[in-house]
Amino acid sequence: MNDTHANSIGGTKSHRIYLLLKDAILSGRLAPGRKLPGELKLAEQYGVSRVTVRRAMQALNEAGLVARKPGLGTVVLQQPLDATVMTASVANLLPNMVKMSKASHVRLLEFCYIKPPEPVREGLGLRDGERVQRSIRVRMADDKPFSYLVTHVPERIALHYNEADLSQTPLFALLERSGVRVDHAAQTISATLATHEVAEALDVSVGSPLIALTRVVYDEEGRGVEHLDALYRPDRYRIQIDLNRTGDEAARYWEPMAPESQRMETEPHEA
Amino acid sequence: MNDTHANSIGGTKSHRIYLLLKDAILSGRLAPGRKLPGELKLAEQYGVSRVTVRRAMQALNEAGLVARKPGLGTVVLQQPLDATVMTASVANLLPNMVKMSKASHVRLLEFCYIKPPEPVREGLGLRDGERVQRSIRVRMADDKPFSYLVTHVPERIALHYNEADLSQTPLFALLERSGVRVDHAAQTISATLATHEVAEALDVSVGSPLIALTRVVYDEEGRGVEHLDALYRPDRYRIQIDLNRTGDEAARYWEPMAPESQRMETEPHEA
Repeated sequence: MNDTHANSIGGTKSHRIYLLLKDAILSGRLAPGRKLPGELKLAEQYGVSRVTVRRAMQALNEAGLVARKPGLGTVVLQQPLDATVMTASVANLLPNMVKMSKASHVRLLEFCYIKPPEPVREGLGLRDGERVQRSIRVRMADDKPFSYLVTHVPERIALHYNEADLSQTPLFALLERSGVRVDHAAQTISATLATHEVAEALDVSVGSPLIALTRVVYDEEGRGVEHLDALYRPDRYRIQIDLNRTGDEAARYWEPMAPESQRMETEPHEA
Repeated sequence: MNDTHANSIGGTKSHRIYLLLKDAILSGRLAPGRKLPGELKLAEQYGVSRVTVRRAMQALNEAGLVARKPGLGTVVLQQPLDATVMTASVANLLPNMVKMSKASHVRLLEFCYIKPPEPVREGLGLRDGERVQRSIRVRMADDKPFSYLVTHVPERIALHYNEADLSQTPLFALLERSGVRVDHAAQTISATLATHEVAEALDVSVGSPLIALTRVVYDEEGRGVEHLDALYRPDRYRIQIDLNRTGDEAARYWEPMAPESQRMETEPHEA
């Protein structure tokens, strides 16, 4: 069963149970070898019929996620590590460009100038009436979409580049080319569900889980120069944060690691 | 409409549309003032009837998320900032203990000794046959659950504390009390959906989005001492990562900030 088969909120109940359990298996929360509850138990838990549970189990079976063992029930199978999963280190929040290789490219879905939505206006600290350039891009690796990026840039900066530039060059490089001195960024990570538009762009079912990252980038004067809302497919992208415990006995705390190997000095910023 | 009203996969289609749009509004992706597509358009997009869309719109309206303006359609309303949202800085991934205050406590759902699941055995680098102490805890702030924590600790360490200890004291404090010299941690952040058990514990609908964090903590000899799978309600918890752009012209990179204010030297580790 392919996720895109049920790309509407009207997707069947069995498909939704399939999605939930697939997600739990791929994330490792349902460990290989673990026995799933019986049909009756699952039917009770999810408030559906046994026929519905059976269909979900069939789909999991066909997808190679579980195996039905006579007399034992349904057990979770070991999953091969998905070679397409990229991780971004906290030091740069850049996907591993080696893995992404040359196959990574961008689809530009929208490019326009608008009055900023309030959270963007506030985040960027814009004056009343100041407009922003809004873009929506989907980033692909090996022709598979993994991120949905909505960016807002103050008009005065965005006028230095055009639509064609943005479909070929990372925004970060365009900002620096426009004379912006990027200084720091504030980021928040959350989780969300794929709505219709996003599901279509990322080739997932409506209602699939996505990593949601919001970033505001500032220049040396503390002015907001970029507002990013990024949504990532968790099966293709993960954020990695390694920490060191430092300080002496009386005052120990965690400190993020920024090893040399995590620094991407010449590679462009992902967004 | 309360999320818990439809705490089964059999939740109505209108409830699922309500959840998706609520999520988009609370996350700011559907900005205040923005007009939603018409009933017909939404019905098409989500593959449901207009009646279903109308019910979802009624629920959004009753929840104060949108308003129906005659002649204008349905527009998104400005949402008050939820005072219960906690943020954890990357420097310690500790929720803001000031906000959590004394009202934070833990419900211990499970405490047992088991043969480790393979990802845990591998993550902790355990010898064949070595057992682990597994616990499931739900952390609450102001009596509202915000995180679901599944931890595995090697038996030789876990034998230094008992069930009562874990229901009152953060695991991190118990580890250090047991003589463990915590040194560093590897963390991955992803997103997932709430399954039946988790949905019940966190008081959300089945299929709601959750932030998923996996952490392996190591001691000074590089031995794994704790494996954590944490699930967070994104409406009550977010992870914050602030970055500095450093280095000279030829070699600029991002570096995580760890300002004094983010250090929690005396407060216990959240998990």
